[in-house]
Amino acid sequence: MIIRILTLFPEMFEGPMGSSIVQRGKDKGLLDIACINIRDYADNKHKKVDDYPYGGGAGMVMTPQPIFDCHEAVTKAFGEGKRPRTIYMTPKGRHFNQAMAGELSQEQELIFLCGHYEGIDQRVIDNLVTDELSIGDYVLTGGELAAMVVIDAVARLIPGVLSQSESYEEESIQSGLLEYPHYTRPSSFRDMDIPEVLISGNHKNIDLWRRKMALRLTLERRPDLLENFPLTKQDKKLLEAIKDEAQKKD
Amino acid sequence: MIIRILTLFPEMFEGPMGSSIVQRGKDKGLLDIACINIRDYADNKHKKVDDYPYGGGAGMVMTPQPIFDCHEAVTKAFGEGKRPRTIYMTPKGRHFNQAMAGELSQEQELIFLCGHYEGIDQRVIDNLVTDELSIGDYVLTGGELAAMVVIDAVARLIPGVLSQSESYEEESIQSGLLEYPHYTRPSSFRDMDIPEVLISGNHKNIDLWRRKMALRLTLERRPDLLENFPLTKQDKKLLEAIKDEAQKKD
Repeated sequence: MIIRILTLFPEMFEGPMGSSIVQRGKDKGLLDIACINIRDYADNKHKKVDDYPYGGGAGMVMTPQPIFDCHEAVTKAFGEGKRPRTIYMTPKGRHFNQAMAGELSQEQELIFLCGHYEGIDQRVIDNLVTDELSIGDYVLTGGELAAMVVIDAVARLIPGVLSQSESYEEESIQSGLLEYPHYTRPSSFRDMDIPEVLISGNHKNIDLWRRKMALRLTLERRPDLLENFPLTKQDKKLLEAIKDEAQKKD
Repeated sequence: MIIRILTLFPEMFEGPMGSSIVQRGKDKGLLDIACINIRDYADNKHKKVDDYPYGGGAGMVMTPQPIFDCHEAVTKAFGEGKRPRTIYMTPKGRHFNQAMAGELSQEQELIFLCGHYEGIDQRVIDNLVTDELSIGDYVLTGGELAAMVVIDAVARLIPGVLSQSESYEEESIQSGLLEYPHYTRPSSFRDMDIPEVLISGNHKNIDLWRRKMALRLTLERRPDLLENFPLTKQDKKLLEAIKDEAQKKD
């Protein structure tokens, strides 16, 4: 996959993009990722990339010319006839989720456009942008962090980036339940002991305990997830037990 | 505000934390932010910070000792009797939103704990963590990017970080409607013209047009936001007009 990030702040990406999963994708030759500085495409001598909004108001708006030219250059470099998805990160966009991450991981090329200042000229959005995405209901200074989040979520789903055992784990995270608690050595730390079942050696009981913990946590924190979850007979029994226990506590 | 980030990957924060709003908070003396490497607190000679999960399964779990000692050192440095909120970023957490950003911006100290590998030992969560937060329903490689997102959203709400005009703009973003489109110079770019009303000089009409655009976008993309929005008489009229226009199009 080839990813190009159109931004006024390429230096923001240095740490995150050199670390962890993205670096692994690069090392394995599965991911070619680079930042393009929109300012380099400004055709005025002061390399100005923003201007006052028509109609008045606070804040500056990113002008269309540098973005159009930058986008054109990047698209051309992908090769004749390519029309890569161009993603603009904005609180107005559709909420990004794991299903979308899976969908985007199938693409061969992706362009991320990061806005700053008050926003970007609407003609850019109307003509170049294919997807407006939001990572959540909060206000960020620019699109850069949001783009990093989407890229991280997408990069780990590109086939081959995660190892086989990690992919297996990934599936369990994506199972639709919140994860059960994890414990590691030492079994007793500052007088805090791990649940005994985990050192019982009885794997059937361990699986049962983990399933129950996952169901309980999901019931407590995200009951909405259970509505669409394909519960087994055993799950239903466990949920009844969990509800009984909760009632006794009250 | 003092923020301490407990992480195994402090280098990931270099770009994002040196840029933009966080840097501005630092420059103005309103924000003191630093990363602490959890690995520095590992008391074994190989500086190992993870181990296999009890009960089996793929992935490694972060061990309790380095995190407890690191957290203790950071808390001590804050001063006697301080019990700072300790935020752990996890898909299991409450969904972070703008209201929470406002709430967190009132704190004097914040600790962010970033997990990696499969997760962290549950005894850490049970004993040190005060808030489990999620930035959205997607899987990230670690808590680092999620922490950056929360820090950016919180930092811009610390009084004095944004200038007065920016704060005004901020309020409008937080108004509960999606924002109207922005346009800047030139008024005609590659044969694409801006809406005429914006160069009419009639500010009443401009405000009306912007309000209508904001209402239309919110109706199309986030009707849930309108349910709790205090609509004025004029808003209701505009919404009727928008629905009429939509019907005619069909």
